[in-house]
Amino acid sequence: MKCRICGAPAFVKLAAHNTTFCAEHFDAFFLRQVRRTIERFGMLEPDRPVVVAVSGGKDSLAVTHALSRLGYPVEALHIDLGIATGGFSAASLEITEKFCRQNGIVLHLYSLEEEFGRGVEALERGRRPFRSRSICSLCGMTKRHIMNEVALARGAAAVATGHNLDDMATALLANVLRWDGFYLAKTLPVLASEHGFARKVKPLALLSEEEILAYCRLHGIARVEGRCPFARDAKFLRYKALLNDIEQHSPGTKRAFYEGYLGYASLFRDHRQGRSGAPRPCGVCGLPTSSEVCTFCRLWRGAAPAAKPEEG
Amino acid sequence: MKCRICGAPAFVKLAAHNTTFCAEHFDAFFLRQVRRTIERFGMLEPDRPVVVAVSGGKDSLAVTHALSRLGYPVEALHIDLGIATGGFSAASLEITEKFCRQNGIVLHLYSLEEEFGRGVEALERGRRPFRSRSICSLCGMTKRHIMNEVALARGAAAVATGHNLDDMATALLANVLRWDGFYLAKTLPVLASEHGFARKVKPLALLSEEEILAYCRLHGIARVEGRCPFARDAKFLRYKALLNDIEQHSPGTKRAFYEGYLGYASLFRDHRQGRSGAPRPCGVCGLPTSSEVCTFCRLWRGAAPAAKPEEG
Repeated sequence: MKCRICGAPAFVKLAAHNTTFCAEHFDAFFLRQVRRTIERFGMLEPDRPVVVAVSGGKDSLAVTHALSRLGYPVEALHIDLGIATGGFSAASLEITEKFCRQNGIVLHLYSLEEEFGRGVEALERGRRPFRSRSICSLCGMTKRHIMNEVALARGAAAVATGHNLDDMATALLANVLRWDGFYLAKTLPVLASEHGFARKVKPLALLSEEEILAYCRLHGIARVEGRCPFARDAKFLRYKALLNDIEQHSPGTKRAFYEGYLGYASLFRDHRQGRSGAPRPCGVCGLPTSSEVCTFCRLWRGAAPAAKPEEG
Repeated sequence: MKCRICGAPAFVKLAAHNTTFCAEHFDAFFLRQVRRTIERFGMLEPDRPVVVAVSGGKDSLAVTHALSRLGYPVEALHIDLGIATGGFSAASLEITEKFCRQNGIVLHLYSLEEEFGRGVEALERGRRPFRSRSICSLCGMTKRHIMNEVALARGAAAVATGHNLDDMATALLANVLRWDGFYLAKTLPVLASEHGFARKVKPLALLSEEEILAYCRLHGIARVEGRCPFARDAKFLRYKALLNDIEQHSPGTKRAFYEGYLGYASLFRDHRQGRSGAPRPCGVCGLPTSSEVCTFCRLWRGAAPAAKPEEG
């Protein structure tokens, strides 16, 4: 196998693109794809910081690495979630710190234990009969809140996450199997800033897991080994495997599926409106919420909404 | 396991409906589902004949049986395709004739060999390097043409086919993976009569393969064993298997997927228009076509379009 561009020995074969690259030309290909995705969807601004949510996994490290090389003022945000099982959070923090040090990237650390005396695992275990599903939803809410808070505080153009094509296509499949118009309107590479939320961008939305793994291998990017012990629900993993099965038989299906959707996403926009009322500022933190006090402040800060004047 | 309605020993368990029925109450359930589908989509008219395309497979026999019991003036149409391999067409004809005789159903026979001296297999083998895929597309075109011709000649309200929920959901999955707006506009239980085409209806569109098999078992409906030797493409079968895998883990997914789509199908309607120009009558048979002479007449009747007055 030889590089399609220069004929040098191949570093990677990309079935979805029906092509083969040497290390150098794969690197150029990868950066070009990221740059094009950013430009096509108007994701970033050259002179405003972009806060990248860095978990220590391959996707978030790769997107940080690539954005930095493309010259964006990248600031990494690592949230220490306090997942003690398997030493997951400690390992994630170590990897992230080392990566940022080696690559000269500003790192903001947000430790739930330091801020609130305990992490998601301890909070969840204390809350109710323990279920790993509810820790995932607590964790997701917590991360979204902190990303918003930090991005707004830093005056960032956007929060970037490492979501890749496999993630997007899998979420899309799940949403389309339920024809959930609300989510079908927003399985997008960019979610505009609105109601005081920071803009959310996914610069790797058109790059596959396989391509990201190759990029990490090429640049010696070490990532956290293993998955979160409370990792995502089985349905999501099953849908991902199904798409991989289709992809194997028909390379390029995942990308065509997601690209095709992008041409239709606006059809679902009307269905998104009116799902919940316009948010108002949380009485405690000021970030947008649909209730008087946001879930984050209720759970982490123990803030209670004021008693309603009348009831019943 | 007991019947949910009467407590008698169960005949069938339907995971998608989270229920169990005895033979009698399953039968009532099945007929009710067919009747509701017909009414919901305005498929048929009580006093006009409905031509049912009967291949001899479980779906077409079940739909004929159910429509007849519901009191519709059913006329079966069997097309003898002339597939000699494995004696497939001969077996299909025999099953169909026996079924119609036993159930007192009018049967129209259309034999390609009698009409044109050869069937699809012979025509295809004589045409070009033989490929089983092209016989499928020839066969599909041929059947659609004859169904139209016979339905129009009989003044039928519609042509009914045995397509079931699994067929519809699988076709929908294939169409949505490509976001093919043209087909996404018409993966429907009813296609209205237009441009001189007969209306096409699928009264079993919301009943699963499993339910149809149980109905055949209940009524002792014998069907053709085995599949057509040139059966459908591997991709379709793979998608069907994937949906079954999802269904097994989350019973009801197939139906929710298809029902959800029905709420959105109209969004794709605009994309359907303008795909091809308005059809005109075929110069030979008079049925609608996009060219001067329809494909059916060109292939089966050897009719050639008139030479163009100028070329090149």
